[in-house]
Parts: sequence; C-alpha cells; structure tokens
Amino acid sequence: MVYIYDTTLRDGAQGKGVSFSLEDKLRIAMALDDLGIHYIEGGWPGSNPKDMAYFEEVKKIKFKNAKIVAFSSTKRAKIKIEDDKNIQTLIEAETPVITVFGKSWDLHVKEALRIPLEENLELIYDTISYLKKYTDEVFFDAEHFFDGFKDNPEYSLKALKAAEEAGADCIVLADTNGGTLWYETEKIIEKVKREINAPLGIHAHNDSDMAVVNSLIAVKKGAIQVQGTINGLGERTGNANLCSIIPNLVLKMGIEAISRENLKKLYSVSRLVSELSNRPHPDNLPFVGDSAFAHKAGVHVSAVEKNPRTYEHINPELVGNKRQIMVSELSGRSNIINKAKELGIELSKDSPAVKKVLEKIKYLESQGYQFEGAEASFEILLKEALGKTKKYFELKGFRVLTEKRSENEEAYAEATIKVEIPEEIAEEKGLKERVEHTAADGRGPVEALDKALRKALEKFYPNLKEVKLTDYKVRILNETAGTEASPRVLIESTDGKDKWGTVGVSPNIIEASWLALIDAIKYKLMKDEEKNK
Amino acid sequence: MVYIYDTTLRDGAQGKGVSFSLEDKLRIAMALDDLGIHYIEGGWPGSNPKDMAYFEEVKKIKFKNAKIVAFSSTKRAKIKIEDDKNIQTLIEAETPVITVFGKSWDLHVKEALRIPLEENLELIYDTISYLKKYTDEVFFDAEHFFDGFKDNPEYSLKALKAAEEAGADCIVLADTNGGTLWYETEKIIEKVKREINAPLGIHAHNDSDMAVVNSLIAVKKGAIQVQGTINGLGERTGNANLCSIIPNLVLKMGIEAISRENLKKLYSVSRLVSELSNRPHPDNLPFVGDSAFAHKAGVHVSAVEKNPRTYEHINPELVGNKRQIMVSELSGRSNIINKAKELGIELSKDSPAVKKVLEKIKYLESQGYQFEGAEASFEILLKEALGKTKKYFELKGFRVLTEKRSENEEAYAEATIKVEIPEEIAEEKGLKERVEHTAADGRGPVEALDKALRKALEKFYPNLKEVKLTDYKVRILNETAGTEASPRVLIESTDGKDKWGTVGVSPNIIEASWLALIDAIKYKLMKDEEKNK
Repeated sequence: MVYIYDTTLRDGAQGKGVSFSLEDKLRIAMALDDLGIHYIEGGWPGSNPKDMAYFEEVKKIKFKNAKIVAFSSTKRAKIKIEDDKNIQTLIEAETPVITVFGKSWDLHVKEALRIPLEENLELIYDTISYLKKYTDEVFFDAEHFFDGFKDNPEYSLKALKAAEEAGADCIVLADTNGGTLWYETEKIIEKVKREINAPLGIHAHNDSDMAVVNSLIAVKKGAIQVQGTINGLGERTGNANLCSIIPNLVLKMGIEAISRENLKKLYSVSRLVSELSNRPHPDNLPFVGDSAFAHKAGVHVSAVEKNPRTYEHINPELVGNKRQIMVSELSGRSNIINKAKELGIELSKDSPAVKKVLEKIKYLESQGYQFEGAEASFEILLKEALGKTKKYFELKGFRVLTEKRSENEEAYAEATIKVEIPEEIAEEKGLKERVEHTAADGRGPVEALDKALRKALEKFYPNLKEVKLTDYKVRILNETAGTEASPRVLIESTDGKDKWGTVGVSPNIIEASWLALIDAIKYKLMKDEEKNK
Repeated sequence: MVYIYDTTLRDGAQGKGVSFSLEDKLRIAMALDDLGIHYIEGGWPGSNPKDMAYFEEVKKIKFKNAKIVAFSSTKRAKIKIEDDKNIQTLIEAETPVITVFGKSWDLHVKEALRIPLEENLELIYDTISYLKKYTDEVFFDAEHFFDGFKDNPEYSLKALKAAEEAGADCIVLADTNGGTLWYETEKIIEKVKREINAPLGIHAHNDSDMAVVNSLIAVKKGAIQVQGTINGLGERTGNANLCSIIPNLVLKMGIEAISRENLKKLYSVSRLVSELSNRPHPDNLPFVGDSAFAHKAGVHVSAVEKNPRTYEHINPELVGNKRQIMVSELSGRSNIINKAKELGIELSKDSPAVKKVLEKIKYLESQGYQFEGAEASFEILLKEALGKTKKYFELKGFRVLTEKRSENEEAYAEATIKVEIPEEIAEEKGLKERVEHTAADGRGPVEALDKALRKALEKFYPNLKEVKLTDYKVRILNETAGTEASPRVLIESTDGKDKWGTVGVSPNIIEASWLALIDAIKYKLMKDEEKNK
C-alpha cells in the first residue's frame, strides 16, 4: 500500500506561469479527493495571505478520501517557537496533517541557514515535537537529502533521526535539486532503511529526467509515501509526475495506491490541472497525453483493434484516456453515445445523429476546439444536433470599436449589438418588440461586447441577470502563425447555483469570445427551461 | 564508450504535427554531426520518395563525426530478395550503415505478419546477410523485443541469434510499445548478454515514462549503442530523449559519448529541432528547457550565486543553457546590473538609474508584466530609463473596428492608424511628410492593427519589412475577474538574422498587443541603428 501525496497546489504552483486562484485550488482539491488521493498539500499558511484564505475555505469541504496538509519550514533559530509567527499561523490553519521541511545537507546549514550543525538538528526536533501536540500527523521533508547523504551521510542521517525521535509520522527524502540517478537513490534508501524505523516517503524532482523512476525505486525499497504533482507540474523541470507514477504502481507493479475504479478519472484530473494552470496539455504525456494512445492512420489499425496488446502497453480506458486512431469511426461513436447517456439521452450506435455529431466534433476539434472544461458547449452541440433545443435569439450584427487616441491615453472600447428573438418566444412572453439594438462600453473590446450582449438579452430573459462570468482564459493555438493564429477562449460562468464552462474558437479573438459567451447564455436558458418543466 | 544513434529524422518525425522539409532534415543532420552524434538515421528510402530525396542530397555533405543510416523492414516473405523493391531501394541509397527492423515477438509474427515462426527467422537472416555485402555496417532492430522476451524468451532470442549469425554489427533491443519497467529491462538485458556476443543497443519509447532510465540501464548492463531523438520527439509519448540521456552519461555516469566541448551545443541543437518541428520548446525539459535552471525570486539567490552547487545539480553552461534568476529585490539590483552589462552598459550598484529601473520593473510586474521570453522589452525599458534611446515615432491614434454582421457571416476587422516621426528624423531622411495615416484589414483585430502599423511605419523605416512575427501568445491574468481580466501578450519576432521577444499588458487586449508590437518594432530600429554605427 502506497500513500499518494499531492503537492500540485503548493510545489506544483511554483511552475512557470502557474497562478491558481482560490477557486482553482478548491476545484483541484475536490478533483484530487475524488480521484482517491490520500494527502493534498495546499500551501504554506505562514508565507502568504492567499494561502491562508485557502485553508479557511477548504475546512468547509467534506472530503471523501483526502487529508488536507499544510506546509512549512522548521522554526526559526534563536526565537521561541511560541513566538514564531510562521509556526503559529500553521497551527491556526487547523489541518489534520502538517509537513515541515528542514535541512539535512550540512552545506545548506552552513551556507544558507548559517547556524551550527547541532542547532539545525534541534530546530527539527523542536518543531516536530511541538507540532505533534496540535495535529494528528506530522511529516518531515528532508530537503536536499540525497545530496546531503552523498556529502556527509552521518549528518544527514542525524537530521532524519531528530525527526524520528520527535515523533514524525513519515520521513520524506527529497531530491530537491533533482540530480540523483536511480542507482544512487536505490543504494541510499537501502542504507536509510537500515538506520531509520519510521515510515519513509520520497519527493523527487525531474532535473535529470529521473523523478518517476526515483519515486518507484523508493517504493520498491520500502517507501510508503510518494509525493508528486499532477502532470509533473512544478518549478524548473517539475516535480515527480503522479500521472506516470500511479498507473505504473497500480497497473504494472501490482501495488495498491488508488483503486482501479478511481484510476479511470486520472485523465480528466490531468486535463483539469492543465486548464487551470493555463498550460497547454502536452499531447505526449505518458498515460494522460492526448497522443499517448494515438495510433497512426493505416498502420496496423486492425491489429490494434483485434488485439490491442500488439501495440498498446495498457488499455487506455484504465486511466480514463482513449485510444485515438487517427480517422476511425469506431471509438468516436462510443464516446458520443456514452456522453449522451450521461446527459440522459439514449442513442443507438447506428443512429445517423451520432454520425452527424461525430463529424461535427471532429471538424471542430481540427479547428482547435476542445471540450474539456467546456462541457456545456459539448452538451449544446449534442442537443442541437439531435434537435433537442430551440433558438433563443439571433444575432443581427455587432460592431466593436477599440480606440486609442494617443500614446498617453488609455485605449477604450464601445460595442453595439442587435439581437432578435423568435416570434414564438415573443408571443409566449407577450412581447411586441422582438428586436433590441443597444450599446455598451468598457476598457476592452471583450468586456464591452459582453456588457452589450447581456444588456440586449436581459430585456427578453431577465434570468440572465443572475449569470456572472468567473473565468476567462485565452489560449492561442498554432502560435507560430503569428497574429493569424487562432485563439481559443474558455469561459466559466455561474448563476450562484451551478457552474458551467463554454468554449469558442476563431482567428478573430473577439469572435472567439463571442462564441463562448453565447454558449454560456444558451446553456443558462436551456437549464432554466428544463427546470421549469 | 557509447555510440549515440539519432533517429529524430525518422522515428522522431512520426511525432504529432511534425513535418520536416528536405531543408529541415539537412539542417538537423548537420547540427547533429556538429554535436558529435555517431549515427544519424534519416529515413526509410523504400517507403517514401521524400526520404529518397534526402538520401541523395545527404551524400553531398562531408560529415565530421556522423555516419548516415538508412532504415528498413526485413525483406518480404515469399519473394526473392533481389526482387524486393524496398530492399533494392535501400541499397540505392548507398549509405555506409543500414538498420533493418524485424519481428522478435511471436505474437506479431503470427498476427501481424501471418507467417510461420521459422520463416521470420529466415527473413531476418537472409536480409542481414544480403545487405552486409552492400554496406559497411548493418544493425538489427529487434522490434517489440522486451514484450517478445516476456511472452516467449526462446523465440525472441532465436530472432537475435539469426541476426547475429547473419553478421549484424549491432543488435538493438527495442521497447516498441514502451511498456517495460526499469527492473524488467535490467533483468532481460542481463539474460540477453549471456546468450548473445554481438554488441547490443537499446531503443526505448516513453509510454511508461521509462525511456531514459531504460536506456541508461541498458548501457550499465553493457549496451554500447543508444537510440533516441532530440527532445524525445516521436509518436505517442515519444522516443528516448537524447537531451537527457547524453548529459547523464557524460556528466554523471562518466561514460564517454560526445565530448564535453560538443556537449555545450546541446541546448542550441535542442532549440533548433523544436523550431523546425514547429512545436513550442517545452520550458520544463531537463537540461535543455528554458526553465531547467530557473530560480525563484528572493529565495536563496545569493546562495545560488555564491555556491551554485547548493541549488543546481549541474552547471547549466555545460549543456549550453543558462541560469535564470527571476526578479527579487536582492537579485533585482544585481540582475539589472548583470543584464545591463550583457548589453554593454556599465552600471554601478548605487547608481540612481538602477533604482529607477528596478522600481519600474516591480511596478510593471505587479501589473502582470513578465520579462521571461521578452528580453527585448526589458532592454528597451532599461535603455529608456538610462536615456540611451531615441523616439522613432509617435502614435497619433488608432481605431480598430471588429464587425460580425450575422451569425452566419465571419467576423472581420479594420484598423486605421496615424503615426508621426520626429522632426530630426524626417530631416535626417530628407523627408517632407512626417505623418502617415493609413488603414488595413484582417480576420481579427490584432492582425488588422499589426498590418496597419507596419504599413504606416515601413514608409519611414523600410528595414521594418524584414520583420516577421513568429509567435503570438496571450495569457489572461487574474482570470477570475472575468472579461475585466488583464491580458498579457507575448510576441516573438525575427528579421531573419535575430529573434527577439516583447511583451505588453493591458486590460484591453488590443492595447496589450499594441504595446508588444511597438516594442518589437522599436527593438528592430534600435538594433539596426547600433549596427550601422
């Protein structure tokens, strides 16, 4: 049995360009819990008021599987622990688990902390024994352990022993600089196991492209906790990639970590983290990349389908991924039938609607659409193809003007829009006027258009007033096409009760935003109508 | 001594979206040769006339280090080898080395080839012994070897022996499905080594995130050839990444492969392949990623600079990469002074200009600016703060209209712009007219504005015609502010000689793009002026 400890929200968040909002962190925490992750490390309360806000909010959530962990350094030297604000804030976070990292490399104690070697051991001991009084589990993260062991094995072991004596529930060996090769990891852990009785964990970094194997070797040598991040997110070359580690443990090494049932959620958790960290989802990621099981057109397709073992190392569905056979009808169809079922629509495999939807999706995907994080757009597409939805309004034109009058004046924007509602709906609502032609302004063109659109439609559909846009993301596809590249806009909206994601793609960024906005509105109108039936 | 065998141009070329032109292939081949690669596998002449063209052209190049390799399957069953067009074309390519891949997994012989097991062994023997007459070295690639060995070790070894008896100069064990874990690789190679005397090679795939360690373990167990690609390019999850394997071999395992001098070229070869395969260069690649040695703001920057060993597993310059230190007060000043020095400007630590620039940068960064990938904007900022630059033009206003006339009509955009050049510059150029007022259109607003801006300025600065935009990225900061979030636009431009990155941030996406565009233009004008002095 291996415990999976996720630090996507803390160590992972140090990845280049990653900036999780509070909303993002809670969404990811819940997805990780649903996946069956055992520990979710969410931040360093003492370092950052934003992190403290996360710990306050996360207390309100009832988790099924995961325990919430707060992270911190050891206490500062030369002050009493009761006066150490960092440690006190840690306790205020009231998490069931706390992880404390400390120095186990003498070089660091001398050059970074600049305190006597003996005093560092006291810091470790004092911090852990103190915190044990305030929380259920305390883990010790031995920073730079492998380098420390190579330089001065006795000292590094003393650091571990200090933690063990203080009552640490798990001692995690960190390869902080990421430079350790697999055979070194193996030897070192064997030696540690001879000296330390406390349960061991591993926290690897990928600087030598070794993080996954270092983590798995540690497990083979007796570690019971693996720390890593989804997609290997993290600074420099990233943390150990849980999306490679977990399938290898469960499907290949026969080691219990998360259930096979939960493992099927891996792909979608991986996609969610890519979306929220605003990084393109690398298509070549093992297990969870979109190309991980992509077989080239024409080559052995029938062999793969008859006997997948000939060309696939595992069945993609075990991790929630799917086989991609470039251009093949078979897998596309079942995907749509399954999704329709989830939405309460029964479709038969041979139904022409399925073929139509499949073609539409393939076309849209070739244009850059993706429906991860934009399920509402998918649902609209499906229902429109099945004729299960109605037209709520028609665009009769919009114009958005952006002007910047001189270098020193800020740019601003004005949008005009004309929309028309269908006759039947006007009759239903007892309205004479079917057209609304209005204008709005804003600092930017998308803001102006959004305001104008709502202004126009709220006249006919007052319930739209409840809708707020909570997230607006832009991803430029084929970036090397310069300004002719296609933007994909992903929007998240809420009406206070539900949340839904929609998408729009167009070489024109305002049009891309438009498409995502109108899907968001259609979805709200569809949703409310179904509820009122 | 390990021989490095690169298959970027053949196996790597099967990666998603990769399409190398003949030019590209020759450029890469020369870069690989310069790097010190021993074998360059360029294609499968029998499969593809484009590949044949490559082999004709590559004959004309005098390589310093590398031998050129042509790739092929074994001969077809039931025909004479002299009549096998594929094999004959292979010989026509006249390469000093040929690699032949053949089945070593009984499942594949039965289900894919559908011939008797014994006949497959004959195909292997016949093909290799025949080709030995026409070329210096023939390598045998045992496809699906590890899966084959696990299912039927006797048969897979027979396949290797057939190749050995036929005179194969190296027998390469391929983990074609990529499913083999490191400890399996280790055991299997130990067993092979007991039965086979011919030199061994390894060809791993990354489906289990094991390709690098599988390759290195093979070497530890006696393999003398490693096959892989630059950046791990390849289908599905990619081939074994030579950019991780080579530094590990040379710098950490003390195994000779390419010289330390040549190793410094690794980063630029890696960037070249990313460019030509039209894939964004992943910033988190070990060794050769732009973030591989990026240290976070504030934390231990002084420690890194005093003793890099504390935080870096190797010196980045050994592979041609460089250390990146993100902005922090402490490092802020030294960072600026260092960067200024790189640009040929001497600044003293206490100079008021440094303080001014630092404050400006901190302010901009709080607005969402980042100078990673936008060093040209940084340089402009620095020079403007030091009064070392001049005004090339002034914006007198722009207007960008985006219109969508109905749901079924595509949106389009039109931009008008007015710019004025300073009197001194007009005089210098002998121009009477200082103002240009013009218009352009495009599919999207940013494209239209870019075209209008260039159209206007090229009248005064014809050298701007050389500038092309090669990359356009948008990041939305504080996404949860909805449409009021701030876009950050990052642009990469080139004039055929240099490449430079610029950035712009504004709540108005068109203005953000504008700011990045004018920096790109200013940079080109500054650069050309300095060159002409």
